[in-house]
Amino acid sequence: MKNIYLLGAAGSIGLQTLDVIEQDPHQFQLIGISLGSNDDLNHHILHRFDVEIVCLRHEKQLDYYQSQYSHIHFVFGDQGLIELAKYPKNGLFVNALSGSSGLYPTVMAIKQKKDIALANKETLVMAGDLINQLIQEYNVSLYPIDSEHSSLWQALRGEKMDDVSKLVITASGGSFRHLTRDELIHVTVDEALKHPNWSMGAKITIDSATMMNKGLEVIEAHHLFHLPYHQIETVLHKESLVHGLIYFKDGTIKASLSHSDMRIPIAYALYYPDRRTYDSTLELTELHFSKMDFDRYPLLKLAFEVGTMGGIMPTVMNAANEAAVKLFLDKKISFLDIEEIIIQHVKQAKQISNPTLENILQVNEEIQHHILMHYEKR
Amino acid sequence: MKNIYLLGAAGSIGLQTLDVIEQDPHQFQLIGISLGSNDDLNHHILHRFDVEIVCLRHEKQLDYYQSQYSHIHFVFGDQGLIELAKYPKNGLFVNALSGSSGLYPTVMAIKQKKDIALANKETLVMAGDLINQLIQEYNVSLYPIDSEHSSLWQALRGEKMDDVSKLVITASGGSFRHLTRDELIHVTVDEALKHPNWSMGAKITIDSATMMNKGLEVIEAHHLFHLPYHQIETVLHKESLVHGLIYFKDGTIKASLSHSDMRIPIAYALYYPDRRTYDSTLELTELHFSKMDFDRYPLLKLAFEVGTMGGIMPTVMNAANEAAVKLFLDKKISFLDIEEIIIQHVKQAKQISNPTLENILQVNEEIQHHILMHYEKR
Repeated sequence: MKNIYLLGAAGSIGLQTLDVIEQDPHQFQLIGISLGSNDDLNHHILHRFDVEIVCLRHEKQLDYYQSQYSHIHFVFGDQGLIELAKYPKNGLFVNALSGSSGLYPTVMAIKQKKDIALANKETLVMAGDLINQLIQEYNVSLYPIDSEHSSLWQALRGEKMDDVSKLVITASGGSFRHLTRDELIHVTVDEALKHPNWSMGAKITIDSATMMNKGLEVIEAHHLFHLPYHQIETVLHKESLVHGLIYFKDGTIKASLSHSDMRIPIAYALYYPDRRTYDSTLELTELHFSKMDFDRYPLLKLAFEVGTMGGIMPTVMNAANEAAVKLFLDKKISFLDIEEIIIQHVKQAKQISNPTLENILQVNEEIQHHILMHYEKR
Repeated sequence: MKNIYLLGAAGSIGLQTLDVIEQDPHQFQLIGISLGSNDDLNHHILHRFDVEIVCLRHEKQLDYYQSQYSHIHFVFGDQGLIELAKYPKNGLFVNALSGSSGLYPTVMAIKQKKDIALANKETLVMAGDLINQLIQEYNVSLYPIDSEHSSLWQALRGEKMDDVSKLVITASGGSFRHLTRDELIHVTVDEALKHPNWSMGAKITIDSATMMNKGLEVIEAHHLFHLPYHQIETVLHKESLVHGLIYFKDGTIKASLSHSDMRIPIAYALYYPDRRTYDSTLELTELHFSKMDFDRYPLLKLAFEVGTMGGIMPTVMNAANEAAVKLFLDKKISFLDIEEIIIQHVKQAKQISNPTLENILQVNEEIQHHILMHYEKR
C-alpha cells in the first residue's frame, strides 16, 4: 500500500488522480486531500474516499464539514495546506494545485521528507533552484506529472544525462493555432477555453493558447532534468501524441507517446517504478511536426529568455501571467493584453540573483496585486 | 580498449563497422576479421587496420596473402571462421556475415565465451532457441545490430519485459512498395536492388522487396526479446525514421528513431552501455504509419506462421529464401517465383520439434541444394 496526499483534489488533475487511485484500492491509501469551493463536488469526493485529513479552502466551510464528517480531521486555507504537508504519515505528496499557490506546500512537504509528484509547474518555474537544493538536502524524489515531462522522464529511463544532446517538448499550438496574430485581437474567453486535444483546467487552457504554458514547461524541464536552455527545444505537433523526445549524442532519438489522457502520466508517477495495466490502444497513422514560430508565440520566446536570466525573473513572468490570465477569464482584458502585460512587467522588473523563498513569495504577491489592482479599477 | 572480431568485414555492414572502429582508435582494437573474394577491397582493409588473424574465403588466396602480410596469421573458409571464434583473446564478436553461413561461427564464439554483436539475423531465425540456451549456459551477452532490433533494445533500456504489451517493427515497404502484386510479375533484379531508404547488401535488399526481411526480423525479435508472436507486430512506415516501438501495458509507447544510417545501430552495439558522439541531426517533419497488408506481402504472413510453429520450420523458410534470392539475383527465376518457392517448400517440409544444431545445418543444406539444383538445371 502506498500512502497518497493530494492537493487540489477537486481540480481537473486532482479528479483524474482520484480515478487512478480508486481503480486500484489495494495499491493506494488516500490519507489527505485539499478541496475547493464547490461543495457538491467536495461531498462527492468525501463519500468516495475514506481520508484522514482534509484541507478546506475557507474557514467558513469548517464547522459544517466537521459536523457532517466527524471522523475526519479538517483544516483550512494556506495554513491547512501546510498541516497536510506536515501530517506525520509518510507518503507520496501529489501537488495538483493550480498556479503559484502550489509552491509553499511543496517546500513544506519536502522538508517533511515526503516524495513529491508535481503537476504544479509553477513550483519549479518560481523556485526551481531552491526546490532542487531542498530535494538534495532532504533526500526526497520529485516526479513530474505534466504529460511532456512524464514523457521525457520515461524516455530517459535507463539513460545517462551525459549522453543527451537535447530534449524536445511538443506543443499542440492550443485553441488558436489556426489563427494569425491579427485574428487574435477579438477572440473570446469561451473560444480560448476550447483546447483541441486536452481536457484541462481553465488557467492551463488559456496558457496553452498563449503558449505561455510551453514556456513554463521549458523552465520546468530545465529544473527537472538539469539541462541548460540551449539544450531544450519546442516543436509544434498538432496531434498531441508524442509528448516529448530525447535526442542522444549518438544520433538516436527516443520519443514517448500516449493518448491525450492525463491519467496516463498521473499513473506513471503514482506507480513508479512499476506500470499499471490500462487499456489504451493507440493506432498510429500520421504524426506531423513543424518548427516553432517564436514571432507567432512571443511568450514562449520570453520564457527562454527569462529562464536563461534566472533569479527572480521567472517568478515575475509567472506572476504577471497568473494575474493576466485571471483578468482575461474575468473578461477585464483582451487575449493579446495577456502578452503585453507579461512582457511589460518582465521588462520593468529588477533582478534578484539568488532569491530566497521569501523574496519569491513576496515578488509574486506584489506583481499579481499590482496588475489586478490596476485593471480591476478600470 | 575493447577487442573486436568482425566476420564479413568486406560486406556492407562490415565496412560500416570498420568506419565506426576507425573513428575511435583509442576505444577499439580490431583483432580478427573475415574477408571476401574482392582482393582490392581486402588489401584496402588490411592496409587500414593492424589485425592479428584474418580468415580468407578460399584456400587458393592463402599463399599470396601470407606472402604479402607476413605478420598476420591467415586462415580460410568455414574452418577459418571457427579459428577466429576460438582465437584466445577475448573480445566482442561482430557477426556481419550474410545468410545461413553466420550460424556456426556464432555458436563457436559463444562457446568461447565471446560476447556477440549480431547483424546476421539468420543465426536467430534458424537456431534462436539453441542460441538462447547457449547464451545462458556460457553467460555471454548478445547485442542486436539490425536497426529495428537496436531500436527495440534501446526503447527497452531501463524497462521490465513484464510491462511490455507488444513490440512493433516498422517496414519501409522496400523497392516495390508502390507496385501492386500484378505489377510485380515483370520486375527486374536491378529494380529490386534500388532500396528507397537504406544502402545495404544485395540479399537483404531483395528480402526487403519481398518483405521476407521483415518476416526474418519478426522471428529474430521473438528470440531476442522473448515475447510470443501475438505480442509482435509490423507496421508500414515509409520514412524509415522510426525503426521500432514498444507499447507498454499502461498505455504509453516508446519509439526509437534515427537516420537510415547503419553506423548508428552498429555503434550502439559496439559502445554499449555507452554512446559515442556522432553528428547526425534529424529534423522531424511528418511521419506516416499504415497497417501492414498481409495479402500484399504473403512472406511476412508466412514468417509469423513459421515462427509460431517453431522447430525446424524457420530454418526451412530461411533456406528456401536464401536459395530463391540467389536464383533471382542470378536471373534464373522471376521476382514472384521467390514467394512461390518458399511457400511450397514450407508446405512440404516435415517438422522436427527440437532440432539439434546438426539437424538445422543439414536441413538448411539439403533445401538450398535441392532448390538450386532444380532451377539451375533448367
